[in-house]
Amino acid sequence: MSKYIVLIDSNDQKGLVYKVSTIFYNYNLNIISNSEFVDRDNNKFFMRSVVEGDADAKELNDAIKSVLPKTASAKVIAPKKKNIIIMATKELHALGDILIRHEAGELDANILAVISNYDELESLVSKFGIPFICISHKGCSREEHEAKIINYIDAFEHVEHVDYIVLAKYMRILTPKFVEAFEDKIINIHHSFLPAFIGANPYKQAYDRGVKIIGATAHFVNNNLDEGPIIAQEVIHVNHAYSWRDMQRSGKDAEKVVLSHALKLALEDRIFVYANKTVIF
Amino acid sequence: MSKYIVLIDSNDQKGLVYKVSTIFYNYNLNIISNSEFVDRDNNKFFMRSVVEGDADAKELNDAIKSVLPKTASAKVIAPKKKNIIIMATKELHALGDILIRHEAGELDANILAVISNYDELESLVSKFGIPFICISHKGCSREEHEAKIINYIDAFEHVEHVDYIVLAKYMRILTPKFVEAFEDKIINIHHSFLPAFIGANPYKQAYDRGVKIIGATAHFVNNNLDEGPIIAQEVIHVNHAYSWRDMQRSGKDAEKVVLSHALKLALEDRIFVYANKTVIF
Amino acid sequence: MSKYIVLIDSNDQKGLVYKVSTIFYNYNLNIISNSEFVDRDNNKFFMRSVVEGDADAKELNDAIKSVLPKTASAKVIAPKKKNIIIMATKELHALGDILIRHEAGELDANILAVISNYDELESLVSKFGIPFICISHKGCSREEHEAKIINYIDAFEHVEHVDYIVLAKYMRILTPKFVEAFEDKIINIHHSFLPAFIGANPYKQAYDRGVKIIGATAHFVNNNLDEGPIIAQEVIHVNHAYSWRDMQRSGKDAEKVVLSHALKLALEDRIFVYANKTVIF
Amino acid sequence: MSKYIVLIDSNDQKGLVYKVSTIFYNYNLNIISNSEFVDRDNNKFFMRSVVEGDADAKELNDAIKSVLPKTASAKVIAPKKKNIIIMATKELHALGDILIRHEAGELDANILAVISNYDELESLVSKFGIPFICISHKGCSREEHEAKIINYIDAFEHVEHVDYIVLAKYMRILTPKFVEAFEDKIINIHHSFLPAFIGANPYKQAYDRGVKIIGATAHFVNNNLDEGPIIAQEVIHVNHAYSWRDMQRSGKDAEKVVLSHALKLALEDRIFVYANKTVIF
Repeated sequence: MSKYIVLIDSNDQKGLVYKVSTIFYNYNLNIISNSEFVDRDNNKFFMRSVVEGDADAKELNDAIKSVLPKTASAKVIAPKKKNIIIMATKELHALGDILIRHEAGELDANILAVISNYDELESLVSKFGIPFICISHKGCSREEHEAKIINYIDAFEHVEHVDYIVLAKYMRILTPKFVEAFEDKIINIHHSFLPAFIGANPYKQAYDRGVKIIGATAHFVNNNLDEGPIIAQEVIHVNHAYSWRDMQRSGKDAEKVVLSHALKLALEDRIFVYANKTVIF
Repeated sequence: MSKYIVLIDSNDQKGLVYKVSTIFYNYNLNIISNSEFVDRDNNKFFMRSVVEGDADAKELNDAIKSVLPKTASAKVIAPKKKNIIIMATKELHALGDILIRHEAGELDANILAVISNYDELESLVSKFGIPFICISHKGCSREEHEAKIINYIDAFEHVEHVDYIVLAKYMRILTPKFVEAFEDKIINIHHSFLPAFIGANPYKQAYDRGVKIIGATAHFVNNNLDEGPIIAQEVIHVNHAYSWRDMQRSGKDAEKVVLSHALKLALEDRIFVYANKTVIF
Repeated sequence: MSKYIVLIDSNDQKGLVYKVSTIFYNYNLNIISNSEFVDRDNNKFFMRSVVEGDADAKELNDAIKSVLPKTASAKVIAPKKKNIIIMATKELHALGDILIRHEAGELDANILAVISNYDELESLVSKFGIPFICISHKGCSREEHEAKIINYIDAFEHVEHVDYIVLAKYMRILTPKFVEAFEDKIINIHHSFLPAFIGANPYKQAYDRGVKIIGATAHFVNNNLDEGPIIAQEVIHVNHAYSWRDMQRSGKDAEKVVLSHALKLALEDRIFVYANKTVIF
Repeated sequence: MSKYIVLIDSNDQKGLVYKVSTIFYNYNLNIISNSEFVDRDNNKFFMRSVVEGDADAKELNDAIKSVLPKTASAKVIAPKKKNIIIMATKELHALGDILIRHEAGELDANILAVISNYDELESLVSKFGIPFICISHKGCSREEHEAKIINYIDAFEHVEHVDYIVLAKYMRILTPKFVEAFEDKIINIHHSFLPAFIGANPYKQAYDRGVKIIGATAHFVNNNLDEGPIIAQEVIHVNHAYSWRDMQRSGKDAEKVVLSHALKLALEDRIFVYANKTVIF
């Protein structure tokens, strides 16, 4: 008995559920859970099914593809540990939360390495027996720096075998080239506020504005560090007694919660990306 | 073109999605939204589909039933305003919220009447042109009092045409006979706390216990006023500066939010009830 | 025995608490509650005390002022119903929530009138026996329209006797002249998002952006409709299944909650405004 | 220049703020922040001030005590790292969160040791260079087991020098004797629900009841493991698709958040305990 996650992303047309469920039926598969969503404005259809049975994954995938529109995408995934690489700079709250969850067995993932442009986090990461690689950005262009990172990843594991890159407070902007190499695979967190603040020290700006809520957003990186498809958002209530440093400290709690939550959704193959948005089942 | 909500509640067995979606396909229906849930512990299958097309409701219903297990329930509902009766005692926060939402066109419902055992709320209800009926409990047994209420409802509309009875702070316990007459149709709110408090003045007890959160629960009434299937729950943070009356006042906000939310879910046919729990799509 | 709320807003200097509490002591007043806040960055001191005793308000006020820096402000307020005017346009959710709370005795306020630039809300407002005034903006400049509103308010009650103007979805921008006439007295709500959206139909923009949280902000109006001192903020979680109209509908719930909450804080004299921010005790 | 936290817990009487602020004034101290609360039902007065200046702590304390009722308690605390001991059993989520915060410098505390009745957590704790002591409960009575723990603490540090014992999922009930040895110093978390569930596997019970919210409560331990003064409470929304194991997993997130938050409040001397409740400034 095998268990598969089936992900379908297609233009909508009549009969898709019928056609796919007919295949499940013919392959004698049990549907354990099943979610669909139709975005009628964009004429898009999304389906995530968890099925159980004796089918061969490749054969099942081909059968499903054969009934879908040519432009549709279908994946039949046998659940397995995902390979992730974490990139960070100096702050350890978001990274630490992931390491502890990993240690607790909460994350279905192999952490291949933690890559940082500084060495401050080495002490923490090495406690957990996870490779820590410091690739300094000093004295090299953004392109050169990223090339070193990609070379490192490549040497150690093929780029295409990396399922997710998690930016756990990695404080550098990535070039479009790097982002393309890991399309819809890079997860970032960034502070977010009502209203939004752009530029240096957003917590200081939020404090000056007298906000009563601060927040954090986890999103895929998509050629623009803070503008990719949103996966999850969380807020924390603050008040006048919070200095901007207090807000920053509370913001860290929102950041780590939202990043770990987004990572969990990704590891469980629950996220579809389209039109710079996410559908999450 | 008609639009139907299809609700299926069945023992789980292989092929249910296939069989039902085949019918939708054969009837040339578009699936607008589709939700399924399988409770594997209880071997139960739930499905809610919104479909659009030219089918006849009765014929569609028969076709669906023909492919389901004998014990399964299937409903094909053409969306229409539901008939509701509100029962209240003296407090107007929850009732008022429903009346304003009704006035704003937010609720897809006809409010047939507001029934109270006191006359305090007449002034509010009559503003909205909704029949207000005071049926005093004074001098009659619980059974006699409820018989009067049922007689009133019956005279004015057949009991079976009442879709929901909303208890908007109706402060009397209902007899099993009344509850059975409106099985899974009576929605109640009740204050709820961490930990829970039983007996008189729970807000005073919560205050004495020094809780930091108070809450409200909306649920179907099920032979035991506060123990039926939970539909929705909400909480409000409080602190040491709240007196028990402050907690009670904040509790009212939680109560009205949670009751209106539960009512909206019911009016949109989004709730299944089984095993004293709810599945909400 | 009288009860007073004492509000002090001063530059910070050593001994303020000592000096003020000495006066309370000399006047034989009981301190029922006492809140202070020092903003060290701005060298500002805020104090709100609730005291009980036999003092004369005017005399007490003079005594307090005599020990404060010249630039400080001190108020001794005998709690009484505040006079408020509500301005609205066509939507009734926020207005309706205030009317119901007023009816329930939750708001310590006289609603002098509801003023609208349309007549859609007349039916609702008149149910509650509150004057509804339609002052159309058609065919007049912004200045002329506002002059009519101020004239109406003046005829009926001196402008200075209006404690708060509540904009319950009043959909017109106010001129600086109007805002100055009611400095720190106009409370507005506005939708708010992570990130923020500027321009037409923000809910459509938020939907297109794929946000997972929508929110509402209550603030004083301060020469710029959406940029005044923030009083309260609230959020609601949404997901991919929400259309922009669903988001708008949920947004209304956040709006009404946050406006009523902000109004309650104002009516209880709990808000200080400075540096385009609020201190809330 | 020294900085002190002044904590006063007294029966209420007229003039307390005056008397204490007079002392601050006479000692030429700057008040940085100041919070008071009067519980009129219980005639209790609480005050927490942060002051800055050149006073001697002992002398200041004596001066304050001299103006308070005999039964009052007053503390003048020079902020310093608190000594804490963590007790845990096998689960690492709550412990891990504290270790990461400690590593990040977020907690103003020395973690003297982690004590467990099993050795599962040794691997995690030893990564952080913190003493891990396994004191098995096997083959000894509850009293004998606790005696070993107290002996260990005593050998290593005087019991009275331990500021807080943090129960990070320590799964054994403590005897009154142990609790008395660390009165108001033991912080525990426990799952909590609406309604509450007593007995084995509360998550299974909550699942069976179909709750829509699960929660966690941090509290001081007070002769009854789950009934001491509540410090903080947090909730997480769940739905019908959560199995009881999913609820348990989400519950862990609530537990770690609420325990770390409560610990932070304790380390900052922000909590008063009285009448089995807390006042938190």
